[in-house]
Amino acid sequence: MASAVSPISDYLATLYKTLHNNTQGEIATYIPELGLADPSSFGICIATVDGQVYTAGDVDIRFTIQSMSKPFIYGYALQQHGQEKVQKKVGVEPTGESFNSIVLDELTNRPFNPMVNAGAIAVTELVEGDTPERRLTEMVDWFSRFAGRELDIDESVFRSEQATGHRNRAIAYMMLNTGMLERDPEDVLDLYFRQCSLSVDCKDMAVMAATLAAQGVNPLTRERVLAVDNVRDVLTVMSTCGMYDYAGQWAYDVGFPAKSGVSGGVIAVIPGQLGVAVYSPPLDRVGNSVRGVEACKKLSHDFSLHLFDGRTDVHSVIRREYTGAVPSKRVRSAAEREFLAKFGERLNVIEVQGALFFGSAENFLRRLTEIAQDGKTIVVDMKRVAYADRTAIELICQTARALSGRNCELIFTELSENPELERLRRALDERVCPETGFSRLDDTDIAIEQFEDAILEEAEMRRNDRIIPLDEIDIFNGLSSDDLRTLSAAVTTFQFDAGQKIINEGDDARIFFVVGRGSVSIWVNVDGRRPRRIGSVGQGGPFGEMALLDGGKRSADVIADVPVICYGFSVDGIREISVDSPTIMTTILGNLVRIMSDRLRLANDEIRALQ
Amino acid sequence: MASAVSPISDYLATLYKTLHNNTQGEIATYIPELGLADPSSFGICIATVDGQVYTAGDVDIRFTIQSMSKPFIYGYALQQHGQEKVQKKVGVEPTGESFNSIVLDELTNRPFNPMVNAGAIAVTELVEGDTPERRLTEMVDWFSRFAGRELDIDESVFRSEQATGHRNRAIAYMMLNTGMLERDPEDVLDLYFRQCSLSVDCKDMAVMAATLAAQGVNPLTRERVLAVDNVRDVLTVMSTCGMYDYAGQWAYDVGFPAKSGVSGGVIAVIPGQLGVAVYSPPLDRVGNSVRGVEACKKLSHDFSLHLFDGRTDVHSVIRREYTGAVPSKRVRSAAEREFLAKFGERLNVIEVQGALFFGSAENFLRRLTEIAQDGKTIVVDMKRVAYADRTAIELICQTARALSGRNCELIFTELSENPELERLRRALDERVCPETGFSRLDDTDIAIEQFEDAILEEAEMRRNDRIIPLDEIDIFNGLSSDDLRTLSAAVTTFQFDAGQKIINEGDDARIFFVVGRGSVSIWVNVDGRRPRRIGSVGQGGPFGEMALLDGGKRSADVIADVPVICYGFSVDGIREISVDSPTIMTTILGNLVRIMSDRLRLANDEIRALQ
Repeated sequence: MASAVSPISDYLATLYKTLHNNTQGEIATYIPELGLADPSSFGICIATVDGQVYTAGDVDIRFTIQSMSKPFIYGYALQQHGQEKVQKKVGVEPTGESFNSIVLDELTNRPFNPMVNAGAIAVTELVEGDTPERRLTEMVDWFSRFAGRELDIDESVFRSEQATGHRNRAIAYMMLNTGMLERDPEDVLDLYFRQCSLSVDCKDMAVMAATLAAQGVNPLTRERVLAVDNVRDVLTVMSTCGMYDYAGQWAYDVGFPAKSGVSGGVIAVIPGQLGVAVYSPPLDRVGNSVRGVEACKKLSHDFSLHLFDGRTDVHSVIRREYTGAVPSKRVRSAAEREFLAKFGERLNVIEVQGALFFGSAENFLRRLTEIAQDGKTIVVDMKRVAYADRTAIELICQTARALSGRNCELIFTELSENPELERLRRALDERVCPETGFSRLDDTDIAIEQFEDAILEEAEMRRNDRIIPLDEIDIFNGLSSDDLRTLSAAVTTFQFDAGQKIINEGDDARIFFVVGRGSVSIWVNVDGRRPRRIGSVGQGGPFGEMALLDGGKRSADVIADVPVICYGFSVDGIREISVDSPTIMTTILGNLVRIMSDRLRLANDEIRALQ
Repeated sequence: MASAVSPISDYLATLYKTLHNNTQGEIATYIPELGLADPSSFGICIATVDGQVYTAGDVDIRFTIQSMSKPFIYGYALQQHGQEKVQKKVGVEPTGESFNSIVLDELTNRPFNPMVNAGAIAVTELVEGDTPERRLTEMVDWFSRFAGRELDIDESVFRSEQATGHRNRAIAYMMLNTGMLERDPEDVLDLYFRQCSLSVDCKDMAVMAATLAAQGVNPLTRERVLAVDNVRDVLTVMSTCGMYDYAGQWAYDVGFPAKSGVSGGVIAVIPGQLGVAVYSPPLDRVGNSVRGVEACKKLSHDFSLHLFDGRTDVHSVIRREYTGAVPSKRVRSAAEREFLAKFGERLNVIEVQGALFFGSAENFLRRLTEIAQDGKTIVVDMKRVAYADRTAIELICQTARALSGRNCELIFTELSENPELERLRRALDERVCPETGFSRLDDTDIAIEQFEDAILEEAEMRRNDRIIPLDEIDIFNGLSSDDLRTLSAAVTTFQFDAGQKIINEGDDARIFFVVGRGSVSIWVNVDGRRPRRIGSVGQGGPFGEMALLDGGKRSADVIADVPVICYGFSVDGIREISVDSPTIMTTILGNLVRIMSDRLRLANDEIRALQ
């Protein structure tokens, strides 16, 4: 759906008007049907890699695909038969000769490339199927997958091609003679002529081009039509041989792969960005649409679409880095926090983002290698990685293996939810973690929490073998032993199993809790999405403390991480006590302000680190 | 500085070993000096766009630059004389002929392209300077800027070139004959031979190539040597004409621009990522280094460096979006917060990141157009934009102008600190803001704050015409009128000028404040960097409240935004009062817990939104 406001639609409208005035060129007449085209017909269409379509002019007029079929059928051959077999049938060298040249490469007998008729005919022979009907279905289906709709054949153009295609017949028989063609030439030509007679409009062709731009995935149907390596080969041949003569000048002036057809269409591919299709029947003397060529030149210049208009950005691969000074979301006692603060520098979190390929992977791995020093724990957070190509995966695995020689720990996190990272995930799980002892976790916060727990356990700060007594609990700091005795009369001890829900979001808040042993996690439910763990509370930490301030509702679920023992204080009970011992309430509230101010400072630190 | 652990160094070491075994090819002997090279010499060097250098083998051996000088001197000509003038002197068409061909384009008399000797000689004539000495200095200086060090000329090779360069002499005189050369051919040839005799090593050449990869900026010296548009033209000609014959096969197998020299060097450019240089004297029959060609093939394949190995990622251009539900950092009263919460949906913040070019700009602007509906305020935060090319700037300006027809407000923020965004900044300030009424602010938080203030003022929630009375202040909620009377006896009223410092980080905390009128900002100093504004407090909001809990030190500076009136409560005073009226302290502390819990919830919301 095009937006009402779009500088791109406006631009195309202006481009249409400007180029419509250019009436140079002649309509192809070598078959009578093509001669019937209206020379003033003119349409421009752009399709983005995510399926946005911009149009100007006559984008619904049907025309036959003609030579614009060549890159796609070449892609078919590569996908079905592999590069090696296809390269025996057809080369990849541009030729100064015209598109319907009969010349073959003298050394190999191959047609020079698949963008000239000889090469395209050789490639069409590779369409699979036992019978001509099956091969026809196979071919039409292939093109339809690129267009995202069922294409059909313009029968009158086909019959005209068949009746007048003597030169192509000569080419086919010459290839039969040299052994390059193995099947009945009439049969191959029949399929070839039908292929050239596929009926399309500008939007179809833009979507087909955009499928190449989107690395082989149709932007409308989201179907993967062509494998990534085959897309590369198709685009290469389009770029060197797509526009007949003037390969050098085309690369200089326009600088993106394109292919024209004698019916007046031109398609162009701007990899990673968009597909372009132009339809305008009048052709220049080498057989390219005059307005089509002009439109490509203008688009390339005005939108900086030349391949060598630099847009590779390897520097923003590291989204941010922070240390253990940004703690996990676990609520810990002041003593624990203070102790952990001394070890903040032992943890680094490095967040990686965007596309991982050689340059960006090199950049981030160099930094990883720099910080992965002795005694360090490094969390590599990949939540915002768009994809990792095979080179990036290889470099990551090799670097990780090399770093296993150092006394450091690597933890890769947040790879689970992105299907594009499936291969990297598998590589880490199968080829890195087992042999290095490094690990992969779903959640960065849990990785940080585990790092902290390990430090506390090493220092025997965490005592899972006992229940913390009241006088060691931060929130009761400063209470006299009398006060503590009074308080302990009002306490109830609760036991919860791992996974048990202790507090329900929305319930009335009547009890406030302190973790006596174990830990609990706090979960919130965000509009129907799966619950999010927003923090956790360890030994000695309070939760549900807002109950102290006249009730209200619980704002989150609290669930036991492990078997947990909690102290529960009924708010009514504490209020009663406070009548006789007012300092109990003031002290607890004062401590609460301190704890919260502490948490707020941590939260602000985290916000600052996140920005 | 190479890291000890690097899969890339390891890879190059292996590549070196593998290819060293390949002893095919012959050393060039057309001038005697080249014949002296050691056929077993072999070095590989990679330089990244940020100046990291990886090496293997004999990277310190000196050799002469020869034809690898051609792309750089072509770049010189483009930069000094412009594309139009240069195109009159030399074409851009690849030719099947060999590098020392005497053939010129019959139509134009031009050499076919600047990568063959004829073209390079024509280009060398364009070196500026009144005298041969000045032209020599100009030329050597030009190359030195690419290498990042002062280069010199191998005099013995130069003399040998001069003595035996009959074929080049023939080419030059033929061009003099057709009028393509205008100066004394001997003079031009002298400079050309010296240029070919520049003495370099593998690292020099890798850095020179990396300068082209980095869009013309030398990665070591950070000097911009070649303008972006000229880099594009140089790379185009390298890609179509750089490796003599087999342009098609080279594009297919390797797929990045490269240039070889008869001394046995090959350079390659992977735009946006790296420069590669290989030195190995034995040449194949078309004059390219055998090991150099193999190394390029392996590197392209093993590191997915082919131009059409997709790595353009237009989707991660939007870093995140959030609404006014994430409020500004201003501390506001509960009533204000509650009121503002109703209007959260009227504000959208959209954070843009990475490189802005056609595809990524289209993506983000489409989203912007979608959300920029009637009555909306949209903050476009550009803090993490790496750069914006001219197309992106144009599209942003046009979209903004088009959106000015809607009843919405656009605010562009966070562009000030990135020098790469200078042009975008100027375009917005000069061409967008004046005519649309949209604005540009340095700070996103201030933009959000202004949005909130406007809503409150519209609703007359903010009363800058009076001082808020004690009984409307959140922190005193629930106090009886007796309590309030008692409290007001302990209050002091302070007046501060705009910009005046109210609290100093590190001072003893003895007074807690409430803003009576105006607003104050909270600033922290982070290790020597410029102070950061982390929040602000509006009318009725408390600050310095931690003083209530037995002193400690101030944790931040507080500065008046505007002329401010504050209530100040001496902590000792309140303590004294509390002896007789204990509920004053409990109530204030309870309110404080509520306020802090509120702030904490906001902070957690923000953290969630930031992730």
